[in-house]
Amino acid sequence: MFAVTILGNNSALPAHGRHPTAQVVAIEDQLILLDCGEGTQLQMSKYKIKRSKINHLFISHLHGDHFFGLIGLITSFSLQNRQQDLHIYAPPELEKIIADQLQVSGTKLPYTLQFHALVEEGRILEEEKFTVDCFKVDHRITCFGFLITEKRKPRKLEMEKLAQVNIPTVFYSHLSMGEDYILPDGTRIANESVTTETSPPRKYAYCADTKFYPPIAEKIRGADLIYHEATYLNNLLEKAIERFHSTSVQAAQMALLAQAKKLLVGHFSSKYESLEEFRAEASAVFPNTEIAEEGVTFMV
Amino acid sequence: MFAVTILGNNSALPAHGRHPTAQVVAIEDQLILLDCGEGTQLQMSKYKIKRSKINHLFISHLHGDHFFGLIGLITSFSLQNRQQDLHIYAPPELEKIIADQLQVSGTKLPYTLQFHALVEEGRILEEEKFTVDCFKVDHRITCFGFLITEKRKPRKLEMEKLAQVNIPTVFYSHLSMGEDYILPDGTRIANESVTTETSPPRKYAYCADTKFYPPIAEKIRGADLIYHEATYLNNLLEKAIERFHSTSVQAAQMALLAQAKKLLVGHFSSKYESLEEFRAEASAVFPNTEIAEEGVTFMV
Repeated sequence: MFAVTILGNNSALPAHGRHPTAQVVAIEDQLILLDCGEGTQLQMSKYKIKRSKINHLFISHLHGDHFFGLIGLITSFSLQNRQQDLHIYAPPELEKIIADQLQVSGTKLPYTLQFHALVEEGRILEEEKFTVDCFKVDHRITCFGFLITEKRKPRKLEMEKLAQVNIPTVFYSHLSMGEDYILPDGTRIANESVTTETSPPRKYAYCADTKFYPPIAEKIRGADLIYHEATYLNNLLEKAIERFHSTSVQAAQMALLAQAKKLLVGHFSSKYESLEEFRAEASAVFPNTEIAEEGVTFMV
Repeated sequence: MFAVTILGNNSALPAHGRHPTAQVVAIEDQLILLDCGEGTQLQMSKYKIKRSKINHLFISHLHGDHFFGLIGLITSFSLQNRQQDLHIYAPPELEKIIADQLQVSGTKLPYTLQFHALVEEGRILEEEKFTVDCFKVDHRITCFGFLITEKRKPRKLEMEKLAQVNIPTVFYSHLSMGEDYILPDGTRIANESVTTETSPPRKYAYCADTKFYPPIAEKIRGADLIYHEATYLNNLLEKAIERFHSTSVQAAQMALLAQAKKLLVGHFSSKYESLEEFRAEASAVFPNTEIAEEGVTFMV
């Protein structure tokens, strides 16, 4: 399982029944939350997201439409008597804002909230089956994107080929992890000669709020699915630049640059009631484009 | 016009499609917001509340289910380029929490936010056509209720009686405001002898979160409508006492004590999916009881 469910796809103001940004990534047996706009916990209930499976929660930046729902979720976890640790990765200023709000309401959490300040690019989480890296995007305030990568899957052992060489079966688990075998006489049996790759590890890149910023491409190269904001249609390019946001066409250009397999666009301005034009404009540049519709789950 | 629209009636956690506490009071040409749980601005959109008519906003206490929606609303007002002042009446600690969140998001409000710290009981707002008083209730943390009172309406001039006395017409506006008239020889013409009362000024009492606390009654005596929380049904009286909340029957007892005309009960625990039992229990003690259902408007 590796899939993204959209809980909110609107920018700034809630409008037209659309909510501020939040996405849930299901990977293996965990759920990861990316951003948490106001009403996220209500959207989770609506779409039957099992919040107890959330251990890691990432906030890209501190504009309200990306984090105003966080304190409510933290408090609800408390009311539900959550016990397991909750890890929050966010710009450092958020830690005190959370603490102050818990303090004035006299809330003592029954679980440990581990706050991880996002400061620089790189690996921020390494789990058994996936990793999360953050990368800088270019917005009005400090903002990070997140890259979620499955770990390399075990290679498939080619039993016919193994029958022809002298590798002890106790070494087979190492073979499946890609190691070569060295015979007692020093001869190396290359891993590729006795195993084959299963499906390659998948990647989801969440590019948060950003202007069109080419350095992102190298951070997310080859991702199976990328989410890129498209706050405006292409005729508002000037406004997009001025506000450090992107247009539909710019989102598509990033998907091309990054050689992504598929593009999701979202974070739509409240000025647009219909979203169809976003699909039309982006897919003219990058055909495999989808609208990040709320309640819809996209496979990575 | 004097009416209350319920935007949220659930306690603590959102559940069963119910939202945390928020109410909009329409009085004359203004809207007043009482508490502002997460998602209040979304509920306003759903129920077509004209948020530009809100100038005064009251927060009873700093449990999250009563104020986590405030920062989103403040920010949305900003994005909509509000110009008129916004007055917030709340426990003093909230001022810094708002300021910190605006600061980290780089938000500079285009309007003036006037923060009024609630510290003691008494008159907190005097408008041309109504007043608002706050009064202490008894909850786990400092918590205030609010009493909204229409100003005395002009008295009706009895023209037949006026024809029999010698009062200059320029004094008629004073008569309608209840003043007596003094003749040149010092004789007093009592106001009641030439005018009659129109309908008496109406009162709405919002009792916020509280345990059953008899001193409230004298603050809200004779209110046309009172809202009193009923977090639990009566079989959880012990739990209500322990949590500084009230039961359905206790809410009804307060309505009796205060000689209210009508009672609204709300702030239901998430453990209850159906609310009918609240009506049954409360109306057995105080017959004119209504459930504070979301989206419903109650005339004061």
